[in-house]
Amino acid sequence: MTYCCAIKVNEGLVFAGDTRTSAGVDDVRTYNKVHVLEFPGDRIFVLLSAGNLATTQAVLAQIRRDLEEPVVPMSLRLARYMYDAAEYIGKLSVNAQNTITPPAQLSSVDLRTTFILGGQIQGEEPSIYMIYPEGNCIASSPETPFLQIGEHKYGKPILDRVIGPNLSLEDAARCALVSIDSTLRSNISVGPPLDLAIVPKDALAVSHKLRLDLDTPFFARLRESWGRQLAASFGNLPKFDWESPPAQGSLLGDRPPGS
Amino acid sequence: MTYCCAIKVNEGLVFAGDTRTSAGVDDVRTYNKVHVLEFPGDRIFVLLSAGNLATTQAVLAQIRRDLEEPVVPMSLRLARYMYDAAEYIGKLSVNAQNTITPPAQLSSVDLRTTFILGGQIQGEEPSIYMIYPEGNCIASSPETPFLQIGEHKYGKPILDRVIGPNLSLEDAARCALVSIDSTLRSNISVGPPLDLAIVPKDALAVSHKLRLDLDTPFFARLRESWGRQLAASFGNLPKFDWESPPAQGSLLGDRPPGS
Repeated sequence: MTYCCAIKVNEGLVFAGDTRTSAGVDDVRTYNKVHVLEFPGDRIFVLLSAGNLATTQAVLAQIRRDLEEPVVPMSLRLARYMYDAAEYIGKLSVNAQNTITPPAQLSSVDLRTTFILGGQIQGEEPSIYMIYPEGNCIASSPETPFLQIGEHKYGKPILDRVIGPNLSLEDAARCALVSIDSTLRSNISVGPPLDLAIVPKDALAVSHKLRLDLDTPFFARLRESWGRQLAASFGNLPKFDWESPPAQGSLLGDRPPGS
Repeated sequence: MTYCCAIKVNEGLVFAGDTRTSAGVDDVRTYNKVHVLEFPGDRIFVLLSAGNLATTQAVLAQIRRDLEEPVVPMSLRLARYMYDAAEYIGKLSVNAQNTITPPAQLSSVDLRTTFILGGQIQGEEPSIYMIYPEGNCIASSPETPFLQIGEHKYGKPILDRVIGPNLSLEDAARCALVSIDSTLRSNISVGPPLDLAIVPKDALAVSHKLRLDLDTPFFARLRESWGRQLAASFGNLPKFDWESPPAQGSLLGDRPPGS
């Protein structure tokens, strides 16, 4: 399994993903799932993937093949709108699954992959799309400023609570990392290291791409800080009315942190 | 769907659940899923349920029927060990499903229910069991001090981070409420009000049973406090090295809360 998320804020886009791939608990590998395709000054795409690894790699291979061919009906370089690019990835995904469908129907192998495509084409707004295994897609919206694929439930509450359009790119990135950290603590099918990519609006390029392992100093400090602050927050929650000492005045905000 | 959890700490047991039952988005009802069965001074059981509501009610009806019959091979009053009580519930659950299996096989209705049975029988330790729809069961353990049923993923990270054997019953209860609050914010199949039951070790009774709605003052304060503290915690997370102003000394612990 996998967990990846993409976030859209006013300042731009944030992408994050884990790197664990498992065809079974005895068949675990590490793969990059945050694929950056840059066309400097013209367009930038980041593709996240969750699902069948062979389908993912078939799609990536075809994307690159179409970029190198001199004459093709469509490629990421030719897409006029982000929606066209998302639709194109969807078609490649369906084709990759159909190519090997007959034998797969005889087995229980799941060939499906779900993608998130985000980025910006010059003259358009930055945007993020979720591309379903069936090839169709949905965009994010002001009310739905993030998209998730894979094991998305563990890390959704913190995104629901924190993400909003005015968040800075760096705060959105920290929120994505906390969301993945919560997930990998609760589900062994999601594992480190993590990949993070930040795409500022109108930069048409990735400003920062980081690989963070558990012992990478920044990520280790972030995990420690978040865990310590969560624990301290519990000490500040309101007391039940039967707890002693009896509440004096407001139950909130009049205790030092960590008390 | 549903979300219920049971937590075992050294001081006793905590049970919590939502009340939303849905046979579809256009068929939503409110039902208690935290069922208390007290035998004062002798034994106490709390039964949580997630799954088919008819199966749940059939099991509860049979539990009560067996308690009223003068001669029965097994009932919650007769169980020698908590394990026997869990196995008994498992048999009732399988029976309830089998009774109506033939017509159900013709439809797509899922008759399965998963239960958590917790409590204490005099002379035994308090314990919690998860009872699968197949009738078998597993207990909690020192390494697995909580059990969850239903939509369990959203609320698992906070339990994973916080729950330990030395936590007070009240802190465990607050953690259960935060866990459910996170879930109902992220999944509409889980909804208020919430039920909470606390069973102190060796009390052989429920010490506190609360129903908390979003506008219940204590729960409203808890939600507000948790959300505010989470947001403040983000302000205290370490900065990326490219963020200005440049970091001075340690990135952690030298900022006032909420900065």
